[in-house]
This record gives sequence, structure tokens and C-alpha cells, in this order.
Amino acid sequence: MAEASRTSEARRDAVFGRWVVFSPARSRRPTDLKSHNPTNNPSPAPKPSCPFCAGRESECAPQIFRVPPEDALPWRIRVIENLYPALRRDVEPPEGSGGEADAEEVPGELALSGFGFHDVVIETPSHEVRLWDLEGEGVRDVLLAYAARVRQLGEHPAVKYVQVFKNHGASAGASMAHSHSQMLGTPFVPPSVKSRFNCMKEVFDKSGNCSLCEISSKDILISETPNFSAIVPFAASYPFEIWIIPRQHLSYFHEIDQDKALDLGSLLKLMLQKLSKQLNDPPFNFMIHSTPFGLSSSCLPYAHWFVQIVPQLSVIGGFELGSGCYINPVFPEDAAKILRELDCS
Amino acid sequence: MAEASRTSEARRDAVFGRWVVFSPARSRRPTDLKSHNPTNNPSPAPKPSCPFCAGRESECAPQIFRVPPEDALPWRIRVIENLYPALRRDVEPPEGSGGEADAEEVPGELALSGFGFHDVVIETPSHEVRLWDLEGEGVRDVLLAYAARVRQLGEHPAVKYVQVFKNHGASAGASMAHSHSQMLGTPFVPPSVKSRFNCMKEVFDKSGNCSLCEISSKDILISETPNFSAIVPFAASYPFEIWIIPRQHLSYFHEIDQDKALDLGSLLKLMLQKLSKQLNDPPFNFMIHSTPFGLSSSCLPYAHWFVQIVPQLSVIGGFELGSGCYINPVFPEDAAKILRELDCS
Ligand SMILES: Nc1ncnc2c1ncn2[C@@H]1O[C@H](COP(=O)(O)OP(=O)(O)O[C@H]2O[C@H](CO)[C@@H](O)[C@H](O)[C@H]2O)[C@@H](O)[C@H]1O
Ligand SMILES: Nc1ncnc2c1ncn2[C@@H]1O[C@H](COP(=O)(O)OP(=O)(O)O[C@H]2O[C@H](CO)[C@@H](O)[C@H](O)[C@H]2O)[C@@H](O)[C@H]1O
Repeated sequence: MAEASRTSEARRDAVFGRWVVFSPARSRRPTDLKSHNPTNNPSPAPKPSCPFCAGRESECAPQIFRVPPEDALPWRIRVIENLYPALRRDVEPPEGSGGEADAEEVPGELALSGFGFHDVVIETPSHEVRLWDLEGEGVRDVLLAYAARVRQLGEHPAVKYVQVFKNHGASAGASMAHSHSQMLGTPFVPPSVKSRFNCMKEVFDKSGNCSLCEISSKDILISETPNFSAIVPFAASYPFEIWIIPRQHLSYFHEIDQDKALDLGSLLKLMLQKLSKQLNDPPFNFMIHSTPFGLSSSCLPYAHWFVQIVPQLSVIGGFELGSGCYINPVFPEDAAKILRELDCS
Repeated sequence: MAEASRTSEARRDAVFGRWVVFSPARSRRPTDLKSHNPTNNPSPAPKPSCPFCAGRESECAPQIFRVPPEDALPWRIRVIENLYPALRRDVEPPEGSGGEADAEEVPGELALSGFGFHDVVIETPSHEVRLWDLEGEGVRDVLLAYAARVRQLGEHPAVKYVQVFKNHGASAGASMAHSHSQMLGTPFVPPSVKSRFNCMKEVFDKSGNCSLCEISSKDILISETPNFSAIVPFAASYPFEIWIIPRQHLSYFHEIDQDKALDLGSLLKLMLQKLSKQLNDPPFNFMIHSTPFGLSSSCLPYAHWFVQIVPQLSVIGGFELGSGCYINPVFPEDAAKILRELDCS
């Protein structure tokens, strides 16, 4: 029980600039940490009421595109509008968007019309298939579908950012069990994106380096491919949080090519398998952190996209809500070692 | 159903600079919103295993002080050490703390020893009493106990901030049912505190005003006392979120006097009663947002403390985790009207 002898430590990361308190005393041994709300055993066979299943397409909001595109073949992936969109494509975009006068630059209270895009990606026609049950090629195609849709949204002058994310399991927010992900195209740069760029700029101004290119420690590495590294970040907010980072300095997720998408797809599949096996099929979220559209080219040296995977093992309390600082009972080095050594073949 | 006819809106607040998407279409009517995990009916009478109950003091970590102080009288409030502290008072404080060379000022990855304070405030000797069951004077005394302990912690040169918070109900993170709150004294300024000050400084630099002094809209007001206003903030992240704000420009919670503490205690009690009645005794958190110790006096014109109360009615998903932007189905004006008109007498 080497872990238990560690004492607490506070760490700040170089990407979001967030503080995290590592407190092994607040938990059992890292290897004992398991989900209490596993999401496994989804109902086998199409649920009679699931609109995301093959054959029930007419119960969905309009389709944007499908994979493969030919209607003659069965679909494997569908990108559709969200039936209950948080932001709406049919309202007037905010004034001045895409133009010079940008209300966002002026500090203080601000209200914009609820313009934006809210789409759903149905990752498989089968109700019982999970994302990591697909072959590497299948996950690649989901990633390529994300990228294609992000490119489309980026053409709208009022869309400043697209947040791609996946909710898996009820305690990670999922209201639909059928494997899917979502994206929101927003007419503003979201708060975490802004603070990430502020933090990475500060580091770059001081050191001349991109915070994500700089990560080199072998202790926190889980797995590496030609194009990507999977790590537990130095100041992970959540136990067993994983980041998948392009090894090359690349700013925009949506520019990913077929080869890199296959590489990422295989690594993402492996990481989801590892989390599922180690943590008892936990609820989780993943988020793609990319770069706002139309960012000045002077910012690109510190703009580096990555994927964040967060298993949901514990409830957030008032300390985290109030301070923005998380308490994590598992040191990144311990989580990385466990995940690195876990065999999923 | 006036609410349902509203369309979405995106709002940014002038305190944290956070964007929130208001999307009434994502939910039922605001008046239908109820907690699915009510925390009511706590087990009556002392739970045999609860160390926070009167008579079981010896099962707790060491006491710091009690109210009333005389051992001869039964206690009403106890401030004790946390048995499983996230930060520890018995390790070496970080180097340079309180001195000139402040590692926090340099951007990039940073690790500090796990030094800090983590205390628990037991708000009542009785297992079945909730904070809002106390008289206004009882809540006042809890607030005065917080303030007294914050003042003690502020005397330590390495403590930069104290986050006071309460978790009520399992889905708000509470692991103990007996009414209590906590505070953490940290050797760093937590991320949300830093971004709050950055945002309020920007507003001040532009307008010459404190963001919180500026709030004047009657639409979002729930209740007012001589010293405090209770509002639903303009860009509330959570449905039925409440802020209680001193009407005077005051920077430090811990300087509160008896009269103001009674005024705040009565208003806090009323707000918790209203949330409990309207939302079916929901899990909730409250947090006191104050000002870091030793802040330069040039920052005080935009440093204004307040209390944030957050009922936990929904799960956070990948969009919020990734972007820092929340989706709230209830407009602040609608929530404020409902809470304002609710009779709790
Ligand atoms: N027939 C149909 N056609 C098209 N779309 C359909 C549909 N039926 C349902 N949908 C949409 O499918 C989506 C499924 O999404 P998820 O299950 O990932 O979570 P949801 O968005 O409900 O909320 C979670 O994620 C959001 C964003 O993170 C959080 O705000 C929230 O609290 C959390 O529960 C929903 O947004 C829903 O509107
Ligand atoms: N005999 C005893 N003597 C002294 N102290 C005792 C004790 N027995 C228990 N305690 C302490 O009492 C506290 C009770 O706190 P809460 O129930 O509010 O939530 P907890 O801190 O467990 O975690 C919640 O809040 C934190 C902070 O927000 C989140 O990190 C976490 O995920 C969430 O569940 C615990 O911190 C515990 O360590």
C-alpha cells in the first residue's frame, strides 16, 4: 500500500491554471476505487422507445448527414439536430458577430439571443453497442464525423467555438442510453476556453513553450502511439482523468486527417476499455478541447487541441463549486501506473 | 404558461465573467421543477453512529472551540478539525509564503506541500435539526462561528484564502447527514476566486463600479433586509440559484458584526425555507465568497463578499465540464418571482 503513505499535495496545471488538492487520506486505495453506478448491461436489443435506434429515424429531429452518405446502404453514424436544442439555429445571430464591434470584448453583464447550433451524433445504429465496442475504424469514423460537422459550423460567421462532448451513464448526465455524443456551436468563446488560452498564453510568454508540448514525464504516461500520448494530467481534477494529446503541435481538432483519426480512434477505444475494466464501467464524459475559430495567428503557438476523459466516481461538493479547486484522492502517477499496466487485450 | 413562450438567451455575468445558456425548452415549467432526491425526513433522534451528535464528542477529531465557550453549559455549535483533512495543518507550509517571493505569481506547473486547514462546523447538537430549523439567532451564531474561525486562520501567514461551504444532502456531496458545514484554508488563491477578481477588476477598470454594488434590477430580487439583498443572479448557472449580497460595499465576510450576522442569519434561514418548500427539500450547497487575505488595498474597491446558494436539481454533463458554460432551463426573473411570492410564514 505504497499509495497510502503519501501525504497531501496541492498542484496547479499549466493548461487551465487550476489548483487541485491530492489527498490520498480521503479515500481507499486507488485500486479499490470503483463506480457505484456502473452503466453496464444496457438493455440488449433495440429498446422499443429509443429514437436513436435503426428504423426509428422518423422520430428524430432532422438529419444533417449520415455515414455512409448513400441512402441505399444502412447507416453507421448519423449527425442530427437536437430535438431540444439549448441554442437555436433559427434565431437571429447576435449583432456585430463576425464583424469588428465585438460585444464580448467589453467587460460586464451581457445578454445575447439564444442563437447557436446543438447537434447529436448517433455513433451506432444498435442500442446495445458502446463506443468502445466498435473497431478502431468505427471510432475513427465517429471522430471524422465530429470533425466534418465542426468544419461546417465553423463556416457560420457567428459561431465562435464548437464544444464536442460525450455523456455516458446517468450520473454523467446522459438522458439517452443509446451511444451518442453532442456538440454545441456557441456565439461566444466559453469561459473555460477563455481561461485555458489565458493560462497557456502566460506560460508561453514566460517560457516560449506550449504547455502541452512540454509534457514529458514518463510517470504520468499511460500509452503512446505514433501521433498521440495518453496521460493522466499532472494536476488531474478527477481520479483517473485521462488526456489524449497530439504529439505534434496542432491547434484545431477539426483538421484531423484519416490516419491520425484512426490512430486516435484506437487509443480512445483502448482508454475507454481500460476505464471500464478498472473502474467497473463508470459513467464518464469526454470533451474535445480545441481552438476558437478566427483566433489571431499570434495565438497559435500556444493553441494545442486535446481530448479530456473524466470518469464520474464522486460527487462534487461546495468546496469545488465555490473555489474551482478539486480534491482528488488519487495521485496522477498512481492512476497512470494502474492504467498503464492494465491488460485489455 | 408565460415562461414556455420565452426563447433561449445567453448571458454573461459581471462577477465571474461566466456564460450561461438559458433554455426554457430544455425543461418543464419552472414551477414543476422539484428535487428527485429530497433530503427530508432525516432519521429522527440521534443516529447511534453519528459522531456529530451530543454525547459523542470523543469520537470526533479535536475541537477548536465551542459555543457557548463554558464547558458547564451544553454546546450549541462546535468547530472541530476534520478527521480526514484534504489539507493538513501538521505539514510544512510552502516556501516563501507570506514573504516576497511568491511561486504562485510565476505561470506554469506548480506543486506545493499539502499544508492547510480543514475544519468542520457542527451547527447543532441534534441529529434531526436542519440549519433553517434554528431561530434567526441560531443561524447568526453559526455565521459568527464561521467568521471567528476565518479570523483565526487568517492570522497564519501561509493561509491565502478560506473557503466556507455547506453540503446538504447526498447529491450535494454530503457524507454526513447531521447538519454541518466546512471550511478549507488554502495556501493558494483558488481558481474561481482568482477569476472572480480578474472579472470584477475588468468591470471596475471600465466603469469605475463594483459589479455587486451595481445590481439594481427589481426583477431578480427575492427579498431585502436593512443590510442584505437576496437575488437570483442575472446569469445564474443553476436553476433557483440565490445570492445574498451585503447592500453596503464590504470586502471581508469575517468582519461581520452581531447585527449584520442576525440580519443575514434571518435572510439565509428564509431562503433555505423557500428552497425547501418550492423544490421539495433539495440537496444544496452554499458557499461564502470573500476576499483573499493580504490583497492590495487598491483591489478593495471591487472586492465585495457574498453568499451563493445552489440547489442541486440536475446533473452536470460534458458541455458544462468542457466549456465552463452552464445550461439553465429557468430564467432568473422567473425563479425570483416564484421565490419572492412564496409564503413561508
Ligand atoms: N428524438 C430525438 N431527436 C433528436 N434529439 C433527441 C431526441 N430525443 C432526445 N434527443 C436529444 O438527445 C440528447 C441526449 O443527450 P444526453 O443524453 O447526452 O444528455 P442531455 O443533453 O439530455 O443532458 C446532459 O447534458 C447536458 C449538456 O452537458 C447537461 O446540460 C444536462 O444537465 C445533462 O443531463 C438530449 O440533448 C436530447 O435533447
Ligand atoms: N468523527 C469525525 N470527526 C471529525 N470530522 C469528521 C468525522 N467524521 C467525518 N468527518 C468529516 O466530516 C466531513 C463531512 O463533510 P460532508 O458530509 O459535507 O462532505 P465530505 O467532506 O465528506 O465530501 C464532500 O465535500 C467535499 C468538499 O466539497 C468533496 O470533495 C466531496 O466529493 C464531497 O462528497 C467529512 O469531510 C469528514 O471527513
